[in-house]
Amino acid sequence: MTAPIIQRLAVIGCGLIGASVIRAARAKGAAGEIVAYDLSPRVRARVRELGMADHVVDDPIEAVRGCDLVIFAVPSAAIGPAAATSAPGMAEGAIVSDVGSVKGAVSDALAAAVAPGVFVIPGHPIAGTEQSGPDSGFASLFEGRWTILCPRPSEQPGYDAALERLTAFWTALGALVELMDASHHDRVLAVTSHLPHLIAYNIVGTAADLEAVSEGEVMKYSAGGFRDFTRIAASDPIMWRDVFLLNKDAVLEVLGRFNEDLQALSRAIRWGEGDKLEALFTRTRAIRKGIVAAGQESAEPNFGRDRKGP
Amino acid sequence: MTAPIIQRLAVIGCGLIGASVIRAARAKGAAGEIVAYDLSPRVRARVRELGMADHVVDDPIEAVRGCDLVIFAVPSAAIGPAAATSAPGMAEGAIVSDVGSVKGAVSDALAAAVAPGVFVIPGHPIAGTEQSGPDSGFASLFEGRWTILCPRPSEQPGYDAALERLTAFWTALGALVELMDASHHDRVLAVTSHLPHLIAYNIVGTAADLEAVSEGEVMKYSAGGFRDFTRIAASDPIMWRDVFLLNKDAVLEVLGRFNEDLQALSRAIRWGEGDKLEALFTRTRAIRKGIVAAGQESAEPNFGRDRKGP
Repeated sequence: MTAPIIQRLAVIGCGLIGASVIRAARAKGAAGEIVAYDLSPRVRARVRELGMADHVVDDPIEAVRGCDLVIFAVPSAAIGPAAATSAPGMAEGAIVSDVGSVKGAVSDALAAAVAPGVFVIPGHPIAGTEQSGPDSGFASLFEGRWTILCPRPSEQPGYDAALERLTAFWTALGALVELMDASHHDRVLAVTSHLPHLIAYNIVGTAADLEAVSEGEVMKYSAGGFRDFTRIAASDPIMWRDVFLLNKDAVLEVLGRFNEDLQALSRAIRWGEGDKLEALFTRTRAIRKGIVAAGQESAEPNFGRDRKGP
Repeated sequence: MTAPIIQRLAVIGCGLIGASVIRAARAKGAAGEIVAYDLSPRVRARVRELGMADHVVDDPIEAVRGCDLVIFAVPSAAIGPAAATSAPGMAEGAIVSDVGSVKGAVSDALAAAVAPGVFVIPGHPIAGTEQSGPDSGFASLFEGRWTILCPRPSEQPGYDAALERLTAFWTALGALVELMDASHHDRVLAVTSHLPHLIAYNIVGTAADLEAVSEGEVMKYSAGGFRDFTRIAASDPIMWRDVFLLNKDAVLEVLGRFNEDLQALSRAIRWGEGDKLEALFTRTRAIRKGIVAAGQESAEPNFGRDRKGP
């Protein structure tokens, strides 16, 4: 039997992602011992009941003591404060990482919170469901999904070896690991994740406020496209509040572009410019085919619950 | 053995929906004989190869001759012209319907195209996939899905009986039938289907045009929310062009509301008003729970290809 990649892992925050990291690390034998902590006594009690970690502790400093990897799985704005709270327990040479959706602001907050002898390597597994809480975690969440690591420009001896260990840890959990500059990560995710969530939250809110169409009707006929948006707009409110506040510049920039394009589209509809509409719709269809061809998704039509239509 | 609800059915247009009507009608024994026609000789040849209809004819007038139900399954703007072309073959007392996503304009176009002795009852099955063409049709497409019928204000003797027969036909195909005024249909669908498609087309176009993020990166990390939009934005370009042109007023009205809300959301992000963001996100999450509770969708997290995340 080979030694686990990580001797003692601490996971701070036991929601969907934290609980999934714990379950996956145990299932894959990626960590010798797993310590769990959550700010909420209720969540800690539930994690104890579920028996998913070796230790569930009530003190955030004790939680990280003796750990060679500490992962903060709390909403992005809470990562810096949580790291500062736990910092006194962190060993020199420990790797400190996270799973937040924003990387620039979080990376700086983490680095400011911990001692210089700790290796700060922010991370972001692009995986999840719209569920929340420790019960929603599952071991296969990261399998075949990208996890982006954003190493800091570091002169620390041993930083590269720490990055290799963290990469090996996520790989063991089934993830495909990619390295990326934090600010580029935040621009990419602003497009592929933050803007889609913002739009979905917005459209669901707009629909609920209409006078001419009842909320019951919106729900009843939601299979026509709306339902996909409601699933996205059911994601964790605190987590997403933090994303928009911490990635403000990139989100507002891409939102500005979205708005420009939407005005043009609106104008084409108003003036009956069918050729412009058809040209855009033909182009976006080709992009989807690119995604399917690239193996990001099955080309099979989905005949199940996600069927939608005209 | 009981007599089928419809003696002889003509389906004009054999794309995803038309082919599914044909397959479902045959599978359920809802029509004694099925005649198929498509404007494209290539599609007609393919429908013959697939052997799904009793007759595939090359003449749109012959196609409807002797039929007691004619369903136009072509893009919305083509429904009126297609009905005018076939009108000389239509028997007095035949039911003429369609499957278009817009009902006001289509209902008037249908009524103008056919003789007064024909019963015009526009319809809209809210079902589909992002696939197109005769090969994409399947018999169970309408099962458990809503089909909205929009009867015209009619003084014709026999209209109510015709409406009952058409209702029985769609019910036999597995659909849940709802009656609705055409203009109300167009307002409801503007929210639940047309706006979501417009937004999805727009965001996919915006993402493809960004300079700072490559198209490859957008595809690679599309699991963060974007992928759901690409599936919607892969829907048939001609069909959707027609929807926006023919339901212009309702679409622009709801788009105006969407825009107002988006400006407010954008402003809240710019000024760091986290409480406003959290309040909206909490509300939209509750709406999703309403949809799940109403049985419109399973509450089970979807661990398959539609998993998405932060």
